[in-house]
Amino acid sequence: MRGVLPPDPSAVVGIGDDAAVLPVPDGRVVASTDLLVEGRHFRRDWSAPEDIGAKAAAQNLADIAAMGAVPIALLFGLAIPGTTAVSWVLRVTSGMVAECDRGGAAISGGDITAADTVMLAITSLGHMNGRAPVTRGGASAGDVVAISGPVGRSAAGLAVLQAGAPDELARLASLVDAHRRPQPDYQAGPQAADAGATAMIDVSDGLVADLGHVAKASGVCIRLRSQDLAGSGELAAAAGKLGTDWRDWALAGGEDHALAATFPAASNVPDTWTVIGDVMAGSGILVDGQRWARPAGWDHFRRSREGLADHGPA
Amino acid sequence: MRGVLPPDPSAVVGIGDDAAVLPVPDGRVVASTDLLVEGRHFRRDWSAPEDIGAKAAAQNLADIAAMGAVPIALLFGLAIPGTTAVSWVLRVTSGMVAECDRGGAAISGGDITAADTVMLAITSLGHMNGRAPVTRGGASAGDVVAISGPVGRSAAGLAVLQAGAPDELARLASLVDAHRRPQPDYQAGPQAADAGATAMIDVSDGLVADLGHVAKASGVCIRLRSQDLAGSGELAAAAGKLGTDWRDWALAGGEDHALAATFPAASNVPDTWTVIGDVMAGSGILVDGQRWARPAGWDHFRRSREGLADHGPA
Repeated sequence: MRGVLPPDPSAVVGIGDDAAVLPVPDGRVVASTDLLVEGRHFRRDWSAPEDIGAKAAAQNLADIAAMGAVPIALLFGLAIPGTTAVSWVLRVTSGMVAECDRGGAAISGGDITAADTVMLAITSLGHMNGRAPVTRGGASAGDVVAISGPVGRSAAGLAVLQAGAPDELARLASLVDAHRRPQPDYQAGPQAADAGATAMIDVSDGLVADLGHVAKASGVCIRLRSQDLAGSGELAAAAGKLGTDWRDWALAGGEDHALAATFPAASNVPDTWTVIGDVMAGSGILVDGQRWARPAGWDHFRRSREGLADHGPA
Repeated sequence: MRGVLPPDPSAVVGIGDDAAVLPVPDGRVVASTDLLVEGRHFRRDWSAPEDIGAKAAAQNLADIAAMGAVPIALLFGLAIPGTTAVSWVLRVTSGMVAECDRGGAAISGGDITAADTVMLAITSLGHMNGRAPVTRGGASAGDVVAISGPVGRSAAGLAVLQAGAPDELARLASLVDAHRRPQPDYQAGPQAADAGATAMIDVSDGLVADLGHVAKASGVCIRLRSQDLAGSGELAAAAGKLGTDWRDWALAGGEDHALAATFPAASNVPDTWTVIGDVMAGSGILVDGQRWARPAGWDHFRRSREGLADHGPA
C-alpha cells in the first residue's frame, strides 16, 4: 500500500509496519467503525469508484466529528473479487484520500483481500483536542435543536436514481451528486462542542431516527418544525416531479451526514447551523406537534441499505 | 450492541454513541486493521464460531503487540447473510471478547450488516505506555534473532484438517487447536521493547516471509538455524504421519502469531524467547546457510488464505 497512499508526516510510524503509531495530543483517541457492502450501501453502476471511496470515508469521519472531535486517521479493509481491475481499486482509494484530505485525516492502514462480494470496512480515528466529548445523552428540556447542513438531499438523489429518468438526471444532478458524494462539514463538530452543544449525532439514518437516539439517550422529547427544514426549495421541486412529499426525504432520509445537536439556547447556536426545533420533557420525537407516523429512517427491510444494527460503535 | 458486550470501565465514552473515546495516556495511539473472508481466512465447517471470533481478534491484536504496544481496544465489522442465526453472531462475538480479555483489550465498536459473504473486519488499538515503537526497520549486523513462541503449529493443524483423517485428529488435536485458536503472547511485545529489541514483527504469513520484511526494511541479511525451531518434536511427529517436512510448517507456515524480534545481543533476549539466528550485512534470509528455496509464506495462490496484499497497515 505504501507508494499508492500519500505519506502522513504527522505519524510516529506510518503505513508499512505491523501497525501505525499516531499522535493524539490530549491522551484520548476517538474511534468508530463501519462496514459497507455492495448492493446494500452502494451500487457500482450508480457511483464512480472515487465516489464510493469518498462516501465510505465521509460517513465514518462524520461519526468522529459528531463527538466534537477532529479526524486524524482512517484505516480501511477492501474486499474485492480477484478479477477486479487494479485501476478500480486505485480509484476507490483516491476517493478515500480526497475525502480524508477534506477532513484533515490521513490514511494510516489498509488491508486488501479477495472475496466474491465487494465490501469496504472503514475505521476512523480522531482526537478531542482538549474538548469534552459531546455524547447523545446530554440534551435537556429547554435546549434548542439545530443542524449543521441540509438533510434529505441524499435521499432525494437516490429517488432520482431509482426513478431512472435520464432527463430528470440533468435537472436534478445536484441531488444525485449529494447522494453519490455527501460532503459533511467536519469542522461543525468541534465548532458545536466549543459553542456548548449538550448532545450531538451524525444524521446517517434519518433525522427522526437519529434524533430519536438522542431523545432516548437523554430521556427527553424533541420537537421539530418541518418548515425550518425546507432549505432552498430544491427538495420540494424534486418531490413535485417525482410525486412524493419532500418531508419524507428531509425527516427520514439518511446519508447527508449533517450533524444534529442540541444547545442550551438559540444564542449558543453557531451562525452556520439552522435551528429546527426544541427539547422538552417527555420522550420520542414530535414533528409539527405530532408523532411522526411514517418510517423513521432507512432500514434494510425497506431498502437493504442498513444491516442488522445501527451504524457507529452501536 | 450494547448489552451483548461487556462494558469497558476505562473508556471515556464506550459503546453506544457515534464513536468511542478511549484514554491513551502517553498521547500516541497504535492502530492496525485486518479483513477476514470466509473460505479464505476461515471455514465455518472447520472452526467453531467462538474460534473464528477469537482468531480474528488474536491476529489483529498481535500486530499491536509487535510494535511493543499494549492492546486497549478492538472495533469490528461483521458481514453475515440475513439468514444467519443470532446465536452464531453471539458466539463469534463471545470469542472476540474472550481473546480481547486475554490481551487486556475491550471491544469498543461494532457494525453488523447483511451480505452474501461472511466477513470480519477488525481494527485494534493500543498504546505505547511511554515506550518507543519497535518497527521492522531497526535490525543491524551483529544482532540476534529470537521468537516469542512456537511457529508452524497452526500450519501443521491446517494440514491435519486438510488430510481429514479422523483417527489422526484425536492424536494431533493440539495442533488443530493451534490452527483454530492461536494464543499469541501479547505481553511478549512490550517485554521485548523493554529488553531493547531493535526490530519486531508478528509472524502471520510465515517466519521466512515475515523476517524477510524485517531484512528488507532494515537493509540486512537474517540467518536462521532450523534446528533451533524444532520445539517439542510434535511438528516432526505430525510431519512423519502426513509424509511431509516439518520445516515447511515452521519456516513457511503462518498464523501462530508468535513475535519475531532482533536484539543487540543474546544477553538482551528475555527468558521466554528462543534465539533462532542472527543478523549480518547483506540482504534476504538464509536458512542453515542457504537461501530458502521453498515458498516463503502462505499466499492466496497456494491456499487462498491471503488476499492481494500484506496483513497489517501494509
